[in-house]
Amino acid sequence: MRELGARVRNWGRWGADDERGTTNLITPERVAAAAGLIRTGEIFDLGIPLDADGPQPGGVRMNPIRLMSENGQEQVLPGGFKWADDFVFMPLQAGSQYDSLAHVHYDEKLYNGHPGDEVTIKGAGKCGIHTQGKGIAGRGVLLDIARHRGVDWLEAGSTIGADELDAVAAAQGVDVGPGDILLFRTGWRAKFLTERDPHGFMSGEPGLALSSAQWLRDRDVAVVGSDNWAIEAIPGENPGALFEVHMVLIRDMGMTLAEMLDFEELAEACAADGHYDFFFAGPPLKFTRGVGSPINPLAIR
Amino acid sequence: MRELGARVRNWGRWGADDERGTTNLITPERVAAAAGLIRTGEIFDLGIPLDADGPQPGGVRMNPIRLMSENGQEQVLPGGFKWADDFVFMPLQAGSQYDSLAHVHYDEKLYNGHPGDEVTIKGAGKCGIHTQGKGIAGRGVLLDIARHRGVDWLEAGSTIGADELDAVAAAQGVDVGPGDILLFRTGWRAKFLTERDPHGFMSGEPGLALSSAQWLRDRDVAVVGSDNWAIEAIPGENPGALFEVHMVLIRDMGMTLAEMLDFEELAEACAADGHYDFFFAGPPLKFTRGVGSPINPLAIR
Amino acid sequence: MRELGARVRNWGRWGADDERGTTNLITPERVAAAAGLIRTGEIFDLGIPLDADGPQPGGVRMNPIRLMSENGQEQVLPGGFKWADDFVFMPLQAGSQYDSLAHVHYDEKLYNGHPGDEVTIKGAGKCGIHTQGKGIAGRGVLLDIARHRGVDWLEAGSTIGADELDAVAAAQGVDVGPGDILLFRTGWRAKFLTERDPHGFMSGEPGLALSSAQWLRDRDVAVVGSDNWAIEAIPGENPGALFEVHMVLIRDMGMTLAEMLDFEELAEACAADGHYDFFFAGPPLKFTRGVGSPINPLAIR
Amino acid sequence: MRELGARVRNWGRWGADDERGTTNLITPERVAAAAGLIRTGEIFDLGIPLDADGPQPGGVRMNPIRLMSENGQEQVLPGGFKWADDFVFMPLQAGSQYDSLAHVHYDEKLYNGHPGDEVTIKGAGKCGIHTQGKGIAGRGVLLDIARHRGVDWLEAGSTIGADELDAVAAAQGVDVGPGDILLFRTGWRAKFLTERDPHGFMSGEPGLALSSAQWLRDRDVAVVGSDNWAIEAIPGENPGALFEVHMVLIRDMGMTLAEMLDFEELAEACAADGHYDFFFAGPPLKFTRGVGSPINPLAIR
Repeated sequence: MRELGARVRNWGRWGADDERGTTNLITPERVAAAAGLIRTGEIFDLGIPLDADGPQPGGVRMNPIRLMSENGQEQVLPGGFKWADDFVFMPLQAGSQYDSLAHVHYDEKLYNGHPGDEVTIKGAGKCGIHTQGKGIAGRGVLLDIARHRGVDWLEAGSTIGADELDAVAAAQGVDVGPGDILLFRTGWRAKFLTERDPHGFMSGEPGLALSSAQWLRDRDVAVVGSDNWAIEAIPGENPGALFEVHMVLIRDMGMTLAEMLDFEELAEACAADGHYDFFFAGPPLKFTRGVGSPINPLAIR
Repeated sequence: MRELGARVRNWGRWGADDERGTTNLITPERVAAAAGLIRTGEIFDLGIPLDADGPQPGGVRMNPIRLMSENGQEQVLPGGFKWADDFVFMPLQAGSQYDSLAHVHYDEKLYNGHPGDEVTIKGAGKCGIHTQGKGIAGRGVLLDIARHRGVDWLEAGSTIGADELDAVAAAQGVDVGPGDILLFRTGWRAKFLTERDPHGFMSGEPGLALSSAQWLRDRDVAVVGSDNWAIEAIPGENPGALFEVHMVLIRDMGMTLAEMLDFEELAEACAADGHYDFFFAGPPLKFTRGVGSPINPLAIR
Repeated sequence: MRELGARVRNWGRWGADDERGTTNLITPERVAAAAGLIRTGEIFDLGIPLDADGPQPGGVRMNPIRLMSENGQEQVLPGGFKWADDFVFMPLQAGSQYDSLAHVHYDEKLYNGHPGDEVTIKGAGKCGIHTQGKGIAGRGVLLDIARHRGVDWLEAGSTIGADELDAVAAAQGVDVGPGDILLFRTGWRAKFLTERDPHGFMSGEPGLALSSAQWLRDRDVAVVGSDNWAIEAIPGENPGALFEVHMVLIRDMGMTLAEMLDFEELAEACAADGHYDFFFAGPPLKFTRGVGSPINPLAIR
Repeated sequence: MRELGARVRNWGRWGADDERGTTNLITPERVAAAAGLIRTGEIFDLGIPLDADGPQPGGVRMNPIRLMSENGQEQVLPGGFKWADDFVFMPLQAGSQYDSLAHVHYDEKLYNGHPGDEVTIKGAGKCGIHTQGKGIAGRGVLLDIARHRGVDWLEAGSTIGADELDAVAAAQGVDVGPGDILLFRTGWRAKFLTERDPHGFMSGEPGLALSSAQWLRDRDVAVVGSDNWAIEAIPGENPGALFEVHMVLIRDMGMTLAEMLDFEELAEACAADGHYDFFFAGPPLKFTRGVGSPINPLAIR
C-alpha cells in the first residue's frame, strides 16, 4: 500500500501549500467544456434524503436529527403571520457527503505532507472542506458497474479493478479524463432502498480495488464518488489492513471522495439514451475547518 | 398586502397538489439555455462560511457549532491509519440558506392553499425543502443595487422598488425573465465583512419594497436571493406590519428565497466584463420535511 | 382505565393552579423525619452512566452524544494553563430521568385539568419539570420485587399488583406511607448489565399492574421510580391500550415518575442489613418548560 | 502560584490512582453527622434555570437549547393518549455546574500527577465527572460575603481573602471544617437577576483571592461553590496570569468546583434564623469521561 501510495502521490504538484489536491484539475477550461454536456437540461439530484430513515445504524455515526424550533404555535404576530424554523444535529458524514482531505492520514502526514497534528479538536488546520468551497463542478461520468455485471448490486467485498473500469467505460462508450468527477454505481443504494437495513448497508460494501488508484491517477480524475459509503471494497483485499484505498486516494493523491450518493434515476436515464457524461454541480457547504460536508450534487444532462 | 397577495398569487397554477411554486418555472429548456452562459468556466461560491464567526448574534438563531468526534487521538489502527469526523448543531436558517415555502404563512394557509397546520412539530407536511431537491439550477442574474447607487451598502430600511430594479437592469444591460434566479446585492454582506457586528447585521436591513413583488411576478422570476437576511427592507414600509414581502412572495407567489449570500467576488467579476448573467447551481440539502436548508450556491460564468 | 383514573384523581387537591401534583406530599415535616434514616452516611447513586453504551437503541430516543469543544489543543495561555469543556446533545428521556406531569395526557387534559394544548413546540406551558425544582428529596423505600420472587429479573409483561407490593413490603419489614418516594426493583437493569442489549431492554419490560395505581393512591406515595424504563408492564394488560399506567399516574394522580434507575448496589446493601428505607435526594435539572430531566438520585442510608 | 500550588497539593494523599480529590473528605461519618443539620426540612434549590435567558452571551459557551421532539401533534394513539419528549443541546458548563478535576491543568499534569494528555477528544481519561457520581452530599456552609460587606454585590475583580472568610464565618457564628461543601455568596447572581446582562455577568466577577487556597486547604474543605462563574476574582490579582485559583484548587488540591449557583433564597433564610449550615445534596449527572455536569443542588435546612 505504501509503495502504491508513493507512486500515485501528488504532493507538491500544486505547490507546497496546496490543500485542495486533485480538484485543482477542475480548471475553468474544463468547466466551460463540460457545459456542453447539458443537452436537455434535465436535472438529477444525487443526494439521499436527510432524515431518521437514513442508512446510519447508530454507533459511530447516526442519522440526522432535525427538530423544529418554531412552527407557529404561541406566535401572536401582526397580519396573522406565522413562521417556522428548524435545527439539525448531525454528523457531517451521515449521508451523501464529501470526505475532505483531512478525513484520513497515516504516518503522521496528511495530503501534501501537512502534519497530521493539524487535525485537532478544533478541526482541520489544513485541508478543511471549506477549501473546496468554489467547487465542485465540471464534467461528470457515470460508470454503472452493477448494470454492466447484470446484477442488482455487487456483493460486499466485491472489488472493482482497473480492467473492469476500462471494460465498463468501453461498453458504455464513454472515456474518463483529466478533471472528471467519476461516479461509479455498485447498486449499494438500490440494496438499501430494497432492504432498508442500515446494518446491512454499513457492515460491508463492494468498491474499488486498491489497484484502481493507479487507474484514477493515470487519468487524472478530480473526484471519485459512489453509491456505497467508503468508495472501496469492505472487507478489503488485505485482511490485516484498513481503508487502504482511503489512505492512498485521500492522503497520497489528494482526492476528495463523494460517498453515499443515489444514482438510481440518473443511471436509468444514462442507459436509456447512452449518454454517460453530464454536467456535475456539487458544492460542499463551507464549514470552516470541517472534515466533511453533506451534499446534494446535481447531475444535469 | 392581502390585496397585492391576491393579485400575484400563483395558487393552482401548477396543480392543486403543487408544493414547489415558482421553481416550476425552471424548465429543462431554460436550464439548457442557461448552460450557454458558462463562458470562461470560472466558479464563484455564494455561500458564507459556516462557523462561530457568522452573522447570528444568538437568541432566535445562532451560528453553527461544529464539534469534532474523532481526530485520531486514542486510535490504534493497522497501517498507522488515523481518521477524523465531525458533528454540527445548527439552525437550518443560520447562514446562506433557502426558505422553503413552509417557512411563513398567514390566514392559516400556506402556498397553494395547503392548510397552515401542515407545519407541525414534525416539520413541513407540505412544501418542505426536500421538494426542491432537484433544483435549484438555471439562469442567474445579479442586480448590483449598491454599486448602481454608488454606495458601499444601502442603509437599513432602504427599499428597492420596481423602478430601481428596472433602472439597474437597464444600466447593467441585462434583462430578467421567466425561470431566472434573481440575485440582488444591497452591500449588506460587505457591511458585515467590514464591521463584523452580528447585531448590526441582524437588527435591520435594506431590501425589496413590497411593490417589487408585482415586478417579480410580471417577469416570472423563479427564485430571488440577496446578501441580506430576509430579502425585504426592515423596518418595513408599514410600521404595524411584519415581513410582508415574505408573506406575499412565499405564501402567495410560492417563491423560494435565498438569503445571506455573498456576492462580493461575483459582483466584481460582473462589473469587470459587464456580464451580469451566469449559470446558477444551488442545490438544497434534502432535509425531509425541512423548513430550510443551508446552501453554498455556485455562480458559473 | 378512565374509571380508575377518575377514582384516584388528585385534581384540585392542591388548588386549581397546582402543577406539581403528588410531590406536594413531600412536606418539610416529612423531609425532616426522613433525615433520621441516614444511619451510616453511605451514599448510593441511582443514575445510570450517560454515554454511548446506554440503553437506547436509537429511533425514538438515542443515547447522549457528548463531544469535547476544548481539550487543551491549540491553546497557548499564560502559565502553561490548559482547559477543557464539553457539549452534550441528548433526549431528556435518554437515561435515568423524571417524567414531568406534562409528559403524557389524554382527553385533551393534563394533570389538574390543565389544557392539553399547553404542551406546544415551546414545551410545557403547565407542569414543566422546572416546577419540581425544589425537589425531590425525602423518605425513599425500595421494594425489591425480583429478590422476593427469587429471580434475576422479571420477564417482560410480568405485572406487579397491589397484593405483591403488600407482600414484598411485609417480607422486607417496611411500610410505605404518605410522601414516600417508592422505588421498586424488577431486575430490568440487571438484565441490561448482563445482556448489554438495548433492543432487549426497550422492547418490553415488567412493571406495575394498572390496579397498583389505587395502592399508590391509598398510601399517598409522592413519587414512584423503577429500574425499568416506563414503570408499567409492557406489553400491558389491555392489548388494545397503550401506557395506561402512565396515563393514570401522571395525568390523573399527578405523580412524577423516575425511570431507568440502577438499584443494584442499593438492593445489596438493603438486603444485607434489612433496612429498606433511606434518605432520597434526586433533584431534577431545572429545564424551563422541560418535559423531563436526566437525574442521578442519591440514596443515603 | 506554583509555590502555593506545591504547598497545598494533595497528590498521593488518597493513593496514586485517585481521581476524586477532596471529595474523599466527604466520609460516611461526616454525611451522617450532616443529616443532623436538617432542622425544619425546608428545601432550597441552588440551580439556575436552564433556558435561553441564562447567563451565557454566546461565543465560548451558550445557553442550553431545548427543543421538543414530540408534543402530541400527528399522534393517533389508542385511548386519546398523547405524549411529549424533548432534546437538549448544551455545553455542560452552561449554567449551574461542577468543574471536574479534568477541567484545567498546567505543566502537563492533571490532579494527582495524571498526565495532561489523558484529556483527549474523547474526554477525560482520568478525573472525569463520572468519578464523582456517588457524591456530592454532606455538610454545606454558606458564607454571605455580600451581606457582610453590606452591598448588593461585590464588584468585578474584588477579591475575598482568608481574613475576610474568617471574619464572615465568625460574624455568622459558623465554622468551616473537614469535608464541608463551602458556598460563598458574592451577589453576582443578584446582579444578573437585576441587570439580565450576560455580557456583564461573564466579562468579570468578584471571587476568591489566590491566598484563600491555603485557607481552604487548612480547613480541608471538600468542595467550594459560588454564585459567580469561576470561583475566583476576574480580573485576577496577577495581570499576566489566568485562572490561577482554578489551577491551584483543581489541579493541585483536587477540589471540585460548583459554579453559577443561586443562593438568593437560601441566604435570606440563613440570615433570618442565623443558621448558616445545612445538608447539601448535589449529585452530578454521570457523564462518562465528562469534563463537567449541570447540577441543581439542594440545600436542606
